Amino acid sequence: MTKKLYLDDLRVGQRLRSKSVTVSAQDIISFARESDPQYFHVDEEAAKDSMFGGLVASGWQTGALSIKLLIESADPPLAGPVIGVEADIAWKLPVRPGDSLRVEAEVTRIVFPRRHVDRGFVSMNIMTYNQRDEVVLTQSVKILAFRDPSRAASSAKRETPVAGSFPVG
Amino acid sequence: MTKKLYLDDLRVGQRLRSKSVTVSAQDIISFARESDPQYFHVDEEAAKDSMFGGLVASGWQTGALSIKLLIESADPPLAGPVIGVEADIAWKLPVRPGDSLRVEAEVTRIVFPRRHVDRGFVSMNIMTYNQRDEVVLTQSVKILAFRDPSRAASSAKRETPVAGSFPVG
Repeated sequence: MTKKLYLDDLRVGQRLRSKSVTVSAQDIISFARESDPQYFHVDEEAAKDSMFGGLVASGWQTGALSIKLLIESADPPLAGPVIGVEADIAWKLPVRPGDSLRVEAEVTRIVFPRRHVDRGFVSMNIMTYNQRDEVVLTQSVKILAFRDPSRAASSAKRETPVAGSFPVG
Repeated sequence: MTKKLYLDDLRVGQRLRSKSVTVSAQDIISFARESDPQYFHVDEEAAKDSMFGGLVASGWQTGALSIKLLIESADPPLAGPVIGVEADIAWKLPVRPGDSLRVEAEVTRIVFPRRHVDRGFVSMNIMTYNQRDEVVLTQSVKILAFRDPSRAASSAKRETPVAGSFPVG
């Protein structure tokens, strides 16, 4: 099994690639019924008369799926948890039933706050591609990630942690 | 019934307020099982040992829910569809079972592209509050929205539309 990357293992410029996953009409409808029930996300027939000419995935679904791909299948794999702090998202192309999505991410910044020995922030530019290698979604994200517990513990002996935790979910 | 606001009816500085909705543990788990299955989103017991001390909603769920609130219950109400083009999101506080969320939005920019008579872009700053009036989520969004069909039709007589449609879903 490949070693999972903790915050300590990441480097600016490092690239991660995910596996791909195919999005079905049922996936699109099921997500949207709960979270984004606009007609072009939930009704295949009605969607034909929309500006999209057919069913398309909610942008929240493609955003979440992109991060899920990165968490579950990045090569090299990331150690969890991965907690979103900020995301700057642009939706570039519709995602339709049968499209296969994959993700490429590049680490752009790493910060180890002094007041926490066990965690820090990693920024990444994330591109989501379809099966035609078209970019459907870009995200610049700032993520709360964790250090390797063994290395964080040894560094804790040298630093004085301050009580409190990040407020972010 | 209150008249729904088309793009033509929006003004910079205009404020919209949504109703509130309460998020249950089941809502959180159900969303996360499909879209963000990290343990602090799907497992109430295990989540107690996480940095959050309990179950919290996925950030994708709170983002989607905020826009859904705006689409379904804004006062004054918005005419749909509302299609996300860009979103700059910051997650400020965890959302826990039993929290009630509501949204306030302010229109910051309106653009009518010359090549389309029926649609344009509206930018908004959107704040999502919990029942303690704490901001849990902020979003600066750029949304594709539509003009009142009757007014767009009359304006079409004066303008020459260019074929093509926005690529965005």
